[in-house]
Amino acid sequence: MEKTDKYKDIKFRHVMPIQLRFNDLDRLGHVNNAVYFSFYDLAKTHYFTDVFGTIDWEEHVTIIASLHSDFYAPIFFDEKIAVETAVAEIGNKSFKLLQRGVNTETGEVKCSCETVMVGYNLKTLQAEPIPQEWKDAFCAYEGRDLLRK
Amino acid sequence: MEKTDKYKDIKFRHVMPIQLRFNDLDRLGHVNNAVYFSFYDLAKTHYFTDVFGTIDWEEHVTIIASLHSDFYAPIFFDEKIAVETAVAEIGNKSFKLLQRGVNTETGEVKCSCETVMVGYNLKTLQAEPIPQEWKDAFCAYEGRDLLRK
Amino acid sequence: MEKTDKYKDIKFRHVMPIQLRFNDLDRLGHVNNAVYFSFYDLAKTHYFTDVFGTIDWEEHVTIIASLHSDFYAPIFFDEKIAVETAVAEIGNKSFKLLQRGVNTETGEVKCSCETVMVGYNLKTLQAEPIPQEWKDAFCAYEGRDLLRK
Amino acid sequence: MEKTDKYKDIKFRHVMPIQLRFNDLDRLGHVNNAVYFSFYDLAKTHYFTDVFGTIDWEEHVTIIASLHSDFYAPIFFDEKIAVETAVAEIGNKSFKLLQRGVNTETGEVKCSCETVMVGYNLKTLQAEPIPQEWKDAFCAYEGRDLLRK
Repeated sequence: MEKTDKYKDIKFRHVMPIQLRFNDLDRLGHVNNAVYFSFYDLAKTHYFTDVFGTIDWEEHVTIIASLHSDFYAPIFFDEKIAVETAVAEIGNKSFKLLQRGVNTETGEVKCSCETVMVGYNLKTLQAEPIPQEWKDAFCAYEGRDLLRK
Repeated sequence: MEKTDKYKDIKFRHVMPIQLRFNDLDRLGHVNNAVYFSFYDLAKTHYFTDVFGTIDWEEHVTIIASLHSDFYAPIFFDEKIAVETAVAEIGNKSFKLLQRGVNTETGEVKCSCETVMVGYNLKTLQAEPIPQEWKDAFCAYEGRDLLRK
Repeated sequence: MEKTDKYKDIKFRHVMPIQLRFNDLDRLGHVNNAVYFSFYDLAKTHYFTDVFGTIDWEEHVTIIASLHSDFYAPIFFDEKIAVETAVAEIGNKSFKLLQRGVNTETGEVKCSCETVMVGYNLKTLQAEPIPQEWKDAFCAYEGRDLLRK
Repeated sequence: MEKTDKYKDIKFRHVMPIQLRFNDLDRLGHVNNAVYFSFYDLAKTHYFTDVFGTIDWEEHVTIIASLHSDFYAPIFFDEKIAVETAVAEIGNKSFKLLQRGVNTETGEVKCSCETVMVGYNLKTLQAEPIPQEWKDAFCAYEGRDLLRK
């Protein structure tokens, strides 16, 4: 597999070490691909907490509209893995999250994921615009203007 | 979320009913997004068994290079869900798998996934060409010429 | 491992076929022991639905107080597995559930589990007595008197 | 639920912090009971590595014969949880492992598990005696004589 790191120019402020579990492994001794999305999900949850502090998820949530994921190299049980997360672009009703899994000892990039998330109202069950205070919080956390032009 | 069904012109021969588990649900009562990839994985495994019969996975395997996944609507515990699978295109070292999750009672398309899979040799740890007999088996199963021109 | 089937005198009315997933397997190619409890959990959920019909779980739920589980033989991916479930005894605030996993083609008993469940009120966060209508429904479903003397 | 801590006289040398994942939660916002066994499994794996150093698991392994688990209080996503592990008793072909999950900030004991493990030969597919060097390593690690009289 050709190794590509699409995000090499992105500076990731948020780094989340991942604790591998014995039953993350498949019969080849690799971390199962489906488990990667639990890692991205966990890192995303902590990213949002770090950006927003405590959030009321009772009504306004974000949900995944689509994602694109690349797998560069298998992950083994004895590796130290962290997931890096950044918001890269914010539109009206959606924003794009970039994430990648790295071996923190070797710097090897194992996998990456681009996720399009949309604002969603649990009461109306409809997509809704990203609140301005969320946009402000993302830009402040990332230290740059993320609004789609 | 706008509902799009990118695969509406594809005829899926392979349909795999999925048994939902209680702990597939997250705190919103939806099937967790990370679990979808277990569903795709399971359907893919059965697809390969149906296409090839028994396979010796000791040396020649296929692994995921990348995937793109769309999430159109949440899946609830009491829904009847099946995953449809088809190989859509075969190259030299890779082939593309299309899958989608549908509610088999309503026909609603819940999610879809395009996966690029590559041939891989577990002994040399290198990508390797898709064997000709695999190409033949895919084309025979799908009933059409899948080779990339 | 000596093979023991503690429940050989119990007649199980409720039988739930389980769909194995590819990532249920560990690196030995066996279904991972932790996954068994997802199977028991799923079978239990369907058992309750069959006994009670639709249930309002908003306030009165049952939670696991303790369980004892035996593992007699490994489960492999290509086996047909079902979980059998029965309530065996009902006390004031708790009842005992018996379950076992069987290969439905050979009859081999793979594993069994005794679970003590207690009534629990999600609003008061306290254990509470098993409602009389639940006791009646369990006895009617199992076709015998289950009340602890 | 009455809170009982059966292991209050055991001194646990091995303490393994657990990273909770977002999809460990069920729809009540509690960590799903089936997930607890992934925690016990992970802590057990690290315990064995700490006791034995690197192990050749190609032929001689240990497998679970039975377990008894108590659930005292639910685990929530924002809690700091660790699993404590100790071998308590060693017989000829089996040994008993004690584990419990604790909130490391409050000291609250959430759950406990006693597991009977047996030596197993992956080539002969038979139970086999616990090797003397394993017995010695367990006793040395725990700092006391663990052999069943």
